[in-house]
Amino acid sequence: MCGIVGIYNNPEAGKLAYLCLYALQHRGQESGGITTSTGTELHTHKAMGMVNDIFHEKELAALTGPHAIGQVRYSTAGTSELKNAQPFVIDFIGGNAAPTSLALGCGPLPPKPLVLGGSESRLARLVDFAQGPLAVVHNGNLTNALALRKQLEKEGAVFQSTMDTEVIMHLAARSSRRTLEEKITDALSQVTGAYCLVFLSKDKMIAARDPKGFRPLVLGRKDETYVAASETCALDLIDAQFVRDVEPGEIVIWDKQGQRSLKPFAGEKQKGHCIFEYVYFARPDSHIFGRDVYEIRKGFGRQLAKEHPAVADMVIPVPDSGMPAAIGYAEESGLPFQMGLIRNHYVGRTFIEPEDAIRHFGVKIKLNPVRELLQGKRVVVVDDSIVRGTTCMKIVKMLRERGGAKEVHVRISSPPIAWPCFYGINTPTRKELIAAHQSVEEIR
Amino acid sequence: MCGIVGIYNNPEAGKLAYLCLYALQHRGQESGGITTSTGTELHTHKAMGMVNDIFHEKELAALTGPHAIGQVRYSTAGTSELKNAQPFVIDFIGGNAAPTSLALGCGPLPPKPLVLGGSESRLARLVDFAQGPLAVVHNGNLTNALALRKQLEKEGAVFQSTMDTEVIMHLAARSSRRTLEEKITDALSQVTGAYCLVFLSKDKMIAARDPKGFRPLVLGRKDETYVAASETCALDLIDAQFVRDVEPGEIVIWDKQGQRSLKPFAGEKQKGHCIFEYVYFARPDSHIFGRDVYEIRKGFGRQLAKEHPAVADMVIPVPDSGMPAAIGYAEESGLPFQMGLIRNHYVGRTFIEPEDAIRHFGVKIKLNPVRELLQGKRVVVVDDSIVRGTTCMKIVKMLRERGGAKEVHVRISSPPIAWPCFYGINTPTRKELIAAHQSVEEIR
Amino acid sequence: MCGIVGIYNNPEAGKLAYLCLYALQHRGQESGGITTSTGTELHTHKAMGMVNDIFHEKELAALTGPHAIGQVRYSTAGTSELKNAQPFVIDFIGGNAAPTSLALGCGPLPPKPLVLGGSESRLARLVDFAQGPLAVVHNGNLTNALALRKQLEKEGAVFQSTMDTEVIMHLAARSSRRTLEEKITDALSQVTGAYCLVFLSKDKMIAARDPKGFRPLVLGRKDETYVAASETCALDLIDAQFVRDVEPGEIVIWDKQGQRSLKPFAGEKQKGHCIFEYVYFARPDSHIFGRDVYEIRKGFGRQLAKEHPAVADMVIPVPDSGMPAAIGYAEESGLPFQMGLIRNHYVGRTFIEPEDAIRHFGVKIKLNPVRELLQGKRVVVVDDSIVRGTTCMKIVKMLRERGGAKEVHVRISSPPIAWPCFYGINTPTRKELIAAHQSVEEIR
Amino acid sequence: MCGIVGIYNNPEAGKLAYLCLYALQHRGQESGGITTSTGTELHTHKAMGMVNDIFHEKELAALTGPHAIGQVRYSTAGTSELKNAQPFVIDFIGGNAAPTSLALGCGPLPPKPLVLGGSESRLARLVDFAQGPLAVVHNGNLTNALALRKQLEKEGAVFQSTMDTEVIMHLAARSSRRTLEEKITDALSQVTGAYCLVFLSKDKMIAARDPKGFRPLVLGRKDETYVAASETCALDLIDAQFVRDVEPGEIVIWDKQGQRSLKPFAGEKQKGHCIFEYVYFARPDSHIFGRDVYEIRKGFGRQLAKEHPAVADMVIPVPDSGMPAAIGYAEESGLPFQMGLIRNHYVGRTFIEPEDAIRHFGVKIKLNPVRELLQGKRVVVVDDSIVRGTTCMKIVKMLRERGGAKEVHVRISSPPIAWPCFYGINTPTRKELIAAHQSVEEIR
Repeated sequence: MCGIVGIYNNPEAGKLAYLCLYALQHRGQESGGITTSTGTELHTHKAMGMVNDIFHEKELAALTGPHAIGQVRYSTAGTSELKNAQPFVIDFIGGNAAPTSLALGCGPLPPKPLVLGGSESRLARLVDFAQGPLAVVHNGNLTNALALRKQLEKEGAVFQSTMDTEVIMHLAARSSRRTLEEKITDALSQVTGAYCLVFLSKDKMIAARDPKGFRPLVLGRKDETYVAASETCALDLIDAQFVRDVEPGEIVIWDKQGQRSLKPFAGEKQKGHCIFEYVYFARPDSHIFGRDVYEIRKGFGRQLAKEHPAVADMVIPVPDSGMPAAIGYAEESGLPFQMGLIRNHYVGRTFIEPEDAIRHFGVKIKLNPVRELLQGKRVVVVDDSIVRGTTCMKIVKMLRERGGAKEVHVRISSPPIAWPCFYGINTPTRKELIAAHQSVEEIR
Repeated sequence: MCGIVGIYNNPEAGKLAYLCLYALQHRGQESGGITTSTGTELHTHKAMGMVNDIFHEKELAALTGPHAIGQVRYSTAGTSELKNAQPFVIDFIGGNAAPTSLALGCGPLPPKPLVLGGSESRLARLVDFAQGPLAVVHNGNLTNALALRKQLEKEGAVFQSTMDTEVIMHLAARSSRRTLEEKITDALSQVTGAYCLVFLSKDKMIAARDPKGFRPLVLGRKDETYVAASETCALDLIDAQFVRDVEPGEIVIWDKQGQRSLKPFAGEKQKGHCIFEYVYFARPDSHIFGRDVYEIRKGFGRQLAKEHPAVADMVIPVPDSGMPAAIGYAEESGLPFQMGLIRNHYVGRTFIEPEDAIRHFGVKIKLNPVRELLQGKRVVVVDDSIVRGTTCMKIVKMLRERGGAKEVHVRISSPPIAWPCFYGINTPTRKELIAAHQSVEEIR
Repeated sequence: MCGIVGIYNNPEAGKLAYLCLYALQHRGQESGGITTSTGTELHTHKAMGMVNDIFHEKELAALTGPHAIGQVRYSTAGTSELKNAQPFVIDFIGGNAAPTSLALGCGPLPPKPLVLGGSESRLARLVDFAQGPLAVVHNGNLTNALALRKQLEKEGAVFQSTMDTEVIMHLAARSSRRTLEEKITDALSQVTGAYCLVFLSKDKMIAARDPKGFRPLVLGRKDETYVAASETCALDLIDAQFVRDVEPGEIVIWDKQGQRSLKPFAGEKQKGHCIFEYVYFARPDSHIFGRDVYEIRKGFGRQLAKEHPAVADMVIPVPDSGMPAAIGYAEESGLPFQMGLIRNHYVGRTFIEPEDAIRHFGVKIKLNPVRELLQGKRVVVVDDSIVRGTTCMKIVKMLRERGGAKEVHVRISSPPIAWPCFYGINTPTRKELIAAHQSVEEIR
Repeated sequence: MCGIVGIYNNPEAGKLAYLCLYALQHRGQESGGITTSTGTELHTHKAMGMVNDIFHEKELAALTGPHAIGQVRYSTAGTSELKNAQPFVIDFIGGNAAPTSLALGCGPLPPKPLVLGGSESRLARLVDFAQGPLAVVHNGNLTNALALRKQLEKEGAVFQSTMDTEVIMHLAARSSRRTLEEKITDALSQVTGAYCLVFLSKDKMIAARDPKGFRPLVLGRKDETYVAASETCALDLIDAQFVRDVEPGEIVIWDKQGQRSLKPFAGEKQKGHCIFEYVYFARPDSHIFGRDVYEIRKGFGRQLAKEHPAVADMVIPVPDSGMPAAIGYAEESGLPFQMGLIRNHYVGRTFIEPEDAIRHFGVKIKLNPVRELLQGKRVVVVDDSIVRGTTCMKIVKMLRERGGAKEVHVRISSPPIAWPCFYGINTPTRKELIAAHQSVEEIR
C-alpha cells in the first residue's frame, strides 16, 4: 500500500504535495519523496522515514516549480531500501541537451561530443520521447512484472531497483510511439495488475489507473491548480474541491493546454475495487469508490449487529480502525457505545521492546482498558479484521484480566481473510492466516 | 506539566522506567530522561525530543542498575533547553571518595589532594549528606523559588539551570540534618507550591508530594519491585498493581529496609487537586485522585447534557480529548454518538506550515470532517475546554463549510477558564483567555 | 580524479577495501562507497563525505563476502549528488532468479510470473550476461560518453545518473557477446577517453585500463588475495606486495580459475600518462608509472634549481604538495631547507568563512608563516603549480607582510598550465587559467 | 591540554572566537564551545567533537554579542562527557533580575516572588557579585581541587560536573569581596596548580594566569578589539597583532573603561613553563614564552646533532612534530634532509581498526615510507619524544622492512620522560613510561 499525489500548476506545488503526503501518511510510513518540475528541470528529495522526518524547511525550499508528484510508501520487512523509495526518476539528455547537463565520470565534461560510429538508420523509427527526465509514483502491484523484466534484461535493459515500477519506465522508454502519453499508454498496455500512477516530465503531468480500478485515485481542483491523490482527505487539507474519481482504465493528461483524458483500454465490465480500502486502509473521512468511508464502515457495523447480535452491557471499539463499525453496531443494537480501550498514539515505529523481564508486549504498549467502566460488565468488542488472530486473542485477554470484563463478545466487521492478495497488499502467506485453517467457530 | 516515574529494585529498572515514560508521553513531549543507580554510581541519559527519539538500544543498555527515575517534560516556548531537561543530577564526591572519581580540568588527577587551608571548626556541624551523587525528577511548580534562589545566590550558591527544581537540591545540600530523607524534608519545609518529586541516590529512592496534593502521584508494585508514577497508565504498561496514591504531604522512602513513609507536614485540610488533570491532562484510562478519568469525563458530559440540552441529530467529539464527554452527552441526551471529525495522528511536532499560498492551517492539519455524515445535519460538538477561543471558532467554521452541517451546537465540558494557574500549567496570560473578557453568551 | 580499489578472495575483503580507500582519500573527498560480493549477492554502502564519516562498525559489518570494490570520488562543484556516488550497481534478475528476489511496487511479489506475450525469437541471439547484479568503480573520463548516451537513449535505455560510467554498463548489458569479460571488452571497444575500471559480479572481478594508460592502476598480492588499486600506497597499508601496473589496454580477470589477462586492444605506441599524477595528484610515497612519486618530484625541484637559481637565504615549500620539490631545490642549490609556512591540517571541508568583518580568508586558514625564521630574509618558496594564480599571490603577500621576508622568489615545479584537460581533471576553463593569458614574466 | 580564547569588543566576537579555536584545534579535539555576551545575556554552544563538526552557520549566527570566550578540550579516555565541555556557565538571577528570566520547574513563573522567610541579617556582608551569569574557560590543572571541593560540598555546595574548574566558580561565588575581579582574585588565592583562565560576564572579560606561568597565554589587539589566546597562531588567523604575554600571576580585566591589569600574587621567582609546549604541544608557527616554537625546536635538533652525531646518508623526520628538529639536525650535521615517511592527514579520530585479519595497525595507517629513497640507505630518524616506546619501535621496523633502510639511527629531541606530570598533561603512569624503567642504552 502507498499513497500518491500530483499537483499541476501552482507556485507552491512542492509544499502542497508535502501537505497531501501528510494527509496520506496512513497509507505508508516506510519512505517518502517528492519530485517537482520547474519547467526546465526536476528536483527530487526522498528518504526513508515519515513525512515529518524527511521534509524540513531546507528540503521544501529546494523543491521549486509549479508541478509536483509525491509518494508515501508502506513498510514491508526486508525490502526497505532507499533505492526503492519513490518518486522513481530517470535522467534523459535527449537530442538537444546542452553538453553541460552531463557530468562525466569523476571529471568534467568532454569539450565536444564525438560523432557516434553506429548506424543511425536502424534507429530511424525512434523518436526522443521526452526532452528531459521523467519521474513517477506508483500505488499498486503489477502481476507480470517479473516476466517483463526478464525479457527487458535479455534485451539489454539496465535495472537499478527491485521495484516493478521500473519496468513501466523501461517499456515507455522503448516504445516507438511519439508522444509521452502515447508511450505511457503503450507501456501500460503490456502490464497487468493493479496500478495508480502519476508521471511528471518537465512540462506534463499524467495520471493513470488500471482497468479494474483496484486502488482509489481521485481528482481535485483548487482554482487553476489540478490535483490527483489517492484519497479525498488529501484534497481537503489543501482546500481543493473533489471533482471525480479517475475512472478505471483512464489516462489523464495535464499540460499547457489544460486537462484532457484518454481511455485507451476498453473499460472492463467487472471492477476490482479493493475491499480492504473500505475495511481499514483508507481514512474514514475520505470519499473513495463513490462513498464516504466512515458511512461504509458504520454500515458494516450495523449489518454485523443484525447478523450477530449479543446480549451485553456495552459496545467498545478496538481503536482507531474499529471505531465506525462499533458505532454502527451500537446504533443498530441499541447498546451504549463506550471507549473501553484507550490507544497510546505516541508509540512510533522505533519502539524498542525490552527483551528480558518484560516480554511479549504485543498490544499492551498501544492499548489499555478502562477498568472502572468494564469491571463486571458484558462487553461487545468490535474490530475491523482478523489476520493471524494473535492480536485479537491478546485484546480479549486484556479486557478480561486487566479490565475485569465478565463476558467478551468479539465482532469483526470484515469476512474471514482466507487468502493472500496479489494486487498490492503485503498480506501474510496462507499458512499464517488463521481463517485459512480454522472455521469461525474454531477461531472463536 | 510533566510525567515522572521511579522504579526501585528491579534488574531492568531502566527499561521499566523507559516503558513508563512511553505511557506518560502525553504529559510532556519537549524532553525526556532517565537516571539509573547501580548501587555505586548513577547513569543518566536525557535529551530534547520524545521518548521514541531519545532512547535506542544503546542508550537503554547503558542505563544499568536496579533503581531508576525518569521524566518527560512539557514544551513551553522559549525555555526549551537541554540544561532544563531532567533528571537533574548533582555530583558529590564526599569524604571517602577515591581521588580517581574527580577528573580535574583538562588534565588528569593530582597525585594527592593537598590539605585544605580553611578552618574546619566552622564546619563541624555539617555532615556529608550523601555518599555520592543525587538525581531528581519534578512535576509541579514552586511559588517561592525565585525568592529562595536569590537568597541562595547571595550565600554563594552556583546555579546552572533555570529550573526551580535546582533550588530544592541546594536547600537539601545545605541542610544541617543528618540523613538524606531528613535533608529533603528540611528542604521541602521551605518551599511552597506544587510538587511531586522522586529522588534517587546510590541506594535510596524517595518520593514526595506537596501538602495540597496538586498533582497526582501513585504507588504500584510488581512482585518485589516498587513503582511511583504520575498516573496509573504507567503501572498498567509494566504489569504493576496499583497500590494507592502518595498522600498529600507524604514522603515515601525505599531502601534496603524496604518501603517506609514519613508525614512531616501537618496534612492540610483543604486539598488542591488540579481540575485540569481530570479535564484533559491525564489519560482517560488512568485512575488518579481516587477515580478513573474516563468516568469522570463522561460524567462531565452527562451533566452538560442536563444543563445545556440541544435539539440536534447527533453528538460528535473533538477528538481525542473531547471523546468521553461526548459519549456522556450522547448517553444522557439520547442523541446518537458519531465520529464527525477525524484526527490525523501522524502530525508531529515538526510540522512545517507553508508560509505563502496556504496560510492559517490551524486545526485543519489535525482534524477533518466526515461530509456524508454531517451534510444538512444539526450537530452537537463537545470539547473539553476553551482557552483562547481561536481553535473552537475554526472547528465550527470547518463543520459548517467543509462538513455542511446545518446547525452547530458547541458544548464545553469544563467551566470558563478565566484565570491563569500558578501551580504548574503553562497557561496564557489573562489577556489571552477569552473567558477573562467575555461572557459565555459573548463567546457564543 | 578518483581513487579506486578491488580486492579478490579475502574473508575480510570489505575491510581491506575500506583501508585502501583511507590510503586513497587524497584522490577524492566528495563521496565514497564499497560493494562486496558474498558469491550469491552484492552488498553496497555509499554516501557523500569522507571515508571517516561514511563507514562505521555497523556499515563495515554488513559488507560481507570475499570480494570487494570501492571508490573515493573527487568533489566538483554542482554535480555533488548521491546518485553519482560509486560503486554504480545494476540489479539483474536473470533467467533463474527466484521470484522472491523481486520486491514489486509497493506491494509483495506476484504468485507466479505470467508468460510474456512478446516474441522470443527476436531475442534468440541474446544471452544472459550475468547471473545477478554487477557493480563498477571508475577513475577517468570518457570523451564520447555524451554521444553514446544519446544513441542509447534513442534505443530506449533508461539512465538514472549523470555519470559517464553508466554508459559503459548499458553497452555491456546490450552486448551480444557471451561472457562477462567479452561483454565488457565489447563495451570498452566503443568508448574513448580515460578509464581505470574495476567491475564486480557475484563471482568475478575484472579490472581494465584504457589503451593510453592515462591514469595509474597497480596490481598487488597478499598471500592468496589479489588487489587492484589506483596507487601503491593502498597496497602498503594492507601489507600487500606490489606486483606490477595493469598495462594500458589490458583487462585482468579474477575468478575461481585465478587471475588471467586479456589484451584485446592493440596497444597504442604513444602513451598518455597524466603528468599531474606526478605533479600533485598521487601521494609522494606511491610508486606509479614505474617510479616513486617522491623522487620524481624531488627531481623536478633539482631541475628547477638548475634552470632558475636564486640568491637567497633559504628554501621553503608550500606544504604539503610543494615539499619534495623544495627539498630537491635546496639540495641542488645548497641553500638551507626550512618550514617557513605551517599548515593547519584540521581545516576540513565544512569550514565556514565568516562573511562580514573578516573577509577573504583564502589561504590564511590553512597556512601561517614562521616570523622569527623569515624576518628580514631572502626566501625561495617552492610550489607545485599555478592554476589561477590567486593563491600564489596571497602566499607571497603573507610571506612579506606577516612573515617579514625581505625578498620572495617563487619557483613552480610544473610548466605553465595553459590548457584545460579533457581526460578526467576538473580543471578551470582557459579563461580562468592565468598562464593561458600571461607569460611567465607577466605572471611574475 | 586545552586551547582557550577570549575576544572583547568586536561586533563579530563569536566568529572570531570560532576562527581562533580552529587555529588552536591541535590543543584539544575532544570537545569545543563558545559563549558570547550581548551585554545583557550570555549565549553558549558547546558539544563533543572538533570545531568543524560543532559549529555550522546556524550555531554561529546564534552566538551574537561583542564579547566571546571559547575552548577546545583534549580527549582523555573515560572522562569524555558533555557535562565537562567548556565554557562552564553559571546562571545568576541577582537582586534586580526580571522574574521572566527564571523558568520554574516544568511550568511557568510564579506571579510574584514571595517574601523569603530567612534572616537577612546574617547575609548582610554579602553583595551580589554579578548581575547575571558568568562563563569561564580553563587550560590547566589545579592540584588542590579535590580537597577544596570536599570542603565546599560539606558547606552545601552543589556540583554538577567533575571538572576542577567548577571549584573556582564556587569559590568566587562565595567570596565576600565586592567586584567580580576581587571575587576571582579571592578564589584564585585559594587554588594551587596550573591555570590559564578567561572569564566572561555580561559586561566584563577577565583573564588570569597562574604565578608560575605553567601554560602560555598571549594578548593581542586588532584595532579596538582585545584578544587573549593560548598561542599566537590564533592571533595570526584573525589578523590581530601580538602585544605581549599575560604575565605569570597577572589578572587582566576588560570592561567599558578599557583594559587594566592586576598583579595580586607576589610574582614567584621560579617560573614553571611547561617544556612540552616547546617539545610538541604548541604549533611551530606560534610565539610563546618569548620565542618562536619553530626556532626552539630546530635548536633542539642542532644540539642533538652535536651531542649525538651519526654517520648516515640522510636525516628524516617523523612527521609532523619531528619536522623542525630534523631540519635542525640536518643543518648542523650537514646531512641531507628528506621526507622518508609520508603522513596520511585524512586519518581521523573515528578510524575503525579491523579486528581480525589485519591487526596491529599502529602507526601504519598514519605513516608510510618512501622506498625508492630509503632502499639500502643509512637513515637518521628524528622524533620529538618517546613515551611508551611502542610507536618508535614500529617506526624503526617499518623503515627497515617496508622502506629497506640499511641502518636506522633514532634521535629524540627531548630528554627521557621518566615521570608523569601533575600540571595538566594526561601522561601515562610511571609504569607505562619506558624511560622510567630503562636507560637510554636499554631503550636503544
